[in-house]
Amino acid sequence: MRAGLMMLALAAASAASVAAAGPLRAGAEAVRDRALHDPTAYDYVESVSVEVGQRLAGTEAAARARDWALAKLTQLGFTNVHVEPFPITAWIRGPEDAEIVSPHRQQLAIIGLGGSVPTPPQGLEGEIALFHTYADLLAAPPGSLAGKIAVVTQPMPRTQDGSGYGYLNPARRAGPSEAARRGAIAYLVRSLATGLSREPHTGALNYQADAPKIPAAALSTIDAELIDHLAARGRTIRIRLRLASETRAATAWTVEGEIRGTQDPDEIVQVGGHLDSWDPGTGSIDDGAGMAIAVAAARLAGTQAPPRRTIRVALFGAEEMDFARAAFAAAHKGDDFVVIGESDIGADRAWRVALPAGSRQTPEMADYAAVVAPLGVEVSPEASRGSGDDTADLVRAGVPAFAVSQDASRYFDWHHSSEDTLDKVDPAQLNQAVATWAAFVYIAANSDIDFRRLAASVAAPQPRRP
Amino acid sequence: MRAGLMMLALAAASAASVAAAGPLRAGAEAVRDRALHDPTAYDYVESVSVEVGQRLAGTEAAARARDWALAKLTQLGFTNVHVEPFPITAWIRGPEDAEIVSPHRQQLAIIGLGGSVPTPPQGLEGEIALFHTYADLLAAPPGSLAGKIAVVTQPMPRTQDGSGYGYLNPARRAGPSEAARRGAIAYLVRSLATGLSREPHTGALNYQADAPKIPAAALSTIDAELIDHLAARGRTIRIRLRLASETRAATAWTVEGEIRGTQDPDEIVQVGGHLDSWDPGTGSIDDGAGMAIAVAAARLAGTQAPPRRTIRVALFGAEEMDFARAAFAAAHKGDDFVVIGESDIGADRAWRVALPAGSRQTPEMADYAAVVAPLGVEVSPEASRGSGDDTADLVRAGVPAFAVSQDASRYFDWHHSSEDTLDKVDPAQLNQAVATWAAFVYIAANSDIDFRRLAASVAAPQPRRP
Repeated sequence: MRAGLMMLALAAASAASVAAAGPLRAGAEAVRDRALHDPTAYDYVESVSVEVGQRLAGTEAAARARDWALAKLTQLGFTNVHVEPFPITAWIRGPEDAEIVSPHRQQLAIIGLGGSVPTPPQGLEGEIALFHTYADLLAAPPGSLAGKIAVVTQPMPRTQDGSGYGYLNPARRAGPSEAARRGAIAYLVRSLATGLSREPHTGALNYQADAPKIPAAALSTIDAELIDHLAARGRTIRIRLRLASETRAATAWTVEGEIRGTQDPDEIVQVGGHLDSWDPGTGSIDDGAGMAIAVAAARLAGTQAPPRRTIRVALFGAEEMDFARAAFAAAHKGDDFVVIGESDIGADRAWRVALPAGSRQTPEMADYAAVVAPLGVEVSPEASRGSGDDTADLVRAGVPAFAVSQDASRYFDWHHSSEDTLDKVDPAQLNQAVATWAAFVYIAANSDIDFRRLAASVAAPQPRRP
Repeated sequence: MRAGLMMLALAAASAASVAAAGPLRAGAEAVRDRALHDPTAYDYVESVSVEVGQRLAGTEAAARARDWALAKLTQLGFTNVHVEPFPITAWIRGPEDAEIVSPHRQQLAIIGLGGSVPTPPQGLEGEIALFHTYADLLAAPPGSLAGKIAVVTQPMPRTQDGSGYGYLNPARRAGPSEAARRGAIAYLVRSLATGLSREPHTGALNYQADAPKIPAAALSTIDAELIDHLAARGRTIRIRLRLASETRAATAWTVEGEIRGTQDPDEIVQVGGHLDSWDPGTGSIDDGAGMAIAVAAARLAGTQAPPRRTIRVALFGAEEMDFARAAFAAAHKGDDFVVIGESDIGADRAWRVALPAGSRQTPEMADYAAVVAPLGVEVSPEASRGSGDDTADLVRAGVPAFAVSQDASRYFDWHHSSEDTLDKVDPAQLNQAVATWAAFVYIAANSDIDFRRLAASVAAPQPRRP
């Protein structure tokens, strides 16, 4: 990787190389090569990790994060830096613990799922019903879990594209209500995490309206395997679980800034990340790094030359509990978005990009493919289907999306856990991701490429033959 | 990985676990757990690596490989073990070398591409035209490379799904003719390989009918980067290249064996790999491991209980030069294939499976998903589009395919190079892949699932509303 990056900066200056260059290619290459040596992204994620730390939406830390972001975007030269407040229901974690009480006492490493109701103050205790897969829980008949603590220990596949997380996400999101509907009094799920660790990984749940709300937590992967081993002895297992939390009405803030377009200022190329984080770590990879990549990319693209279109960065204020998406879409439904992207998959290298439908064969995107090829980045043959949770409502409403796949092989070792900290950020990989984003933003903001029209042309029905 | 595998074997015996089991699930779980501790696959790849070694189609080694495979399948208890011969044009490598002659002499690590014409016996020499991306070569105007050696140094993205190889494959396959069409006298491509190594990686080229045939070779990734660095100094680079090879009419052999079905013997569940290999290594990961996985999976599935349908293994005799596919399809066009799969992506762990269209929601495949879930394997939401090069013609003709994605992150560090050797095979990962294949074969061969009908049902047009 490092040799490749070094080669690249040299090669860009090559007099002996032969290149077919569209009008924006040289500029995009220059942006790319500056990105590889630019300190902005690492400084950003270092700053938010050290000076703010965890910043769960609705906590006092979220207000500090807001003020930090306003100052940071201003300091980095963005204009029209402002805050968009929106109401949320904040969920605040209290003391939590759990242990196996039978066949013998053993402390368990657990963490409450975001949105979980608390247990009674003294906790609750029950025999477990163990499911090695989430599908097995879904196949359990109504009433079969009465009085029990349902435990799902299915491991999450380790994948470069992060698909293992999506594959198992229903076990965390919907599992509590599915267990409750079958009579369970509480729910424990193996952390949606790769690797083996005693650190449990949190994340939001979604209670369903027709099921009782039961307390729900994630087990560390090691504790989940311990339960599997113990159950294999055929012994009855009883667990005691105590979760405290409170909810309250609160305000969250999305922070925005822009580099205003010189020719078509109302046309907006938007990139971003989310400002909020889960509470156990310092939110360095989720989503300190993601924000850092988007902010650095926007700045590099926008300072290479005054952009034709406006480049906007949006730092969403409540991604983890799913509140920012609708608020942002409502506040910006009149905007003229050229393309939108959110960077929310950690700090590691980009390996694939997915372009808006119908655009891959355009001269602009062919140039883009050539600019990122030396970074070891491929262009997906499939069009992008979205780019981050916070932009999903806008994408559903027709805004074209640009997506970067960063290597997620390590990401879920630390995501949503106390291990989400600055030491996980590799500056060289971070800057390779910045370069991948920045070259795209530069081309999108300095061309007249019309992704909406291109998408419409491929979605339109084929004309009939005469 | 290892802890997860150990847990699994224990969990299968658990009395405390709750499971929703279709009629074949318990058997499939037993097959899976046997696979995790079965020596067949490793012994197979060790044997072919040590006792046969490289086995390029059309060489005397290919005949040895044929005899080895006949004996091995017989020894493993397969019946109707036989050979299907087919004619090929063999391409045999001769002495090869290359060096930079200007600005100063430097030996280059290269390997001829399969099918390349030779240079004149004394070699050829020319100034290079350097392209950092393959797209740049395609953009070069006709005649612009007259008298030059075209060099493409685009790096291959490292990906878990192997997509980087497909992305850059045209640079090796079509690059020689594209360069020739623009006047080049020879063609050098950076090895389609991940990582940095002095070992170059070969692979087939495809000359196009309308272009002169020019000699073509792969550079090691390190040598490609050296040329990039040198070119960045603005110096003219001259290279001398010498490639020898011969072609001759030859015979190749696909070796087959089966475990005959007890109830529907004419319905065939076929798995396989390819028996031939490239010449520089010992063909241990490509495709010794792939064959080993298929053979071990078929045997485990077929010995759990006498299968209802016939399980066939096919060891294709000339994959690397693209000859086996059409020969096999022609020989078997009357067969009643239930489903077909080829294992040809190395020895590392499975992480995703793709099922035939329309089958994912069936009880049989829901059971399959649950059986492989504890292995850390996800079921793709996308249907399989194929499964190996040798089965591509049959799949195009409508045979349902089953595909396993094994982790390809390391595979292309060694693929098609002298480093394709036995030490790259991790027995624990190999057996996890065997388990993933074996459970599928067991369910497919012991159910009456009709993948063709299921595929037809999803492909059929939606009925109109009244």
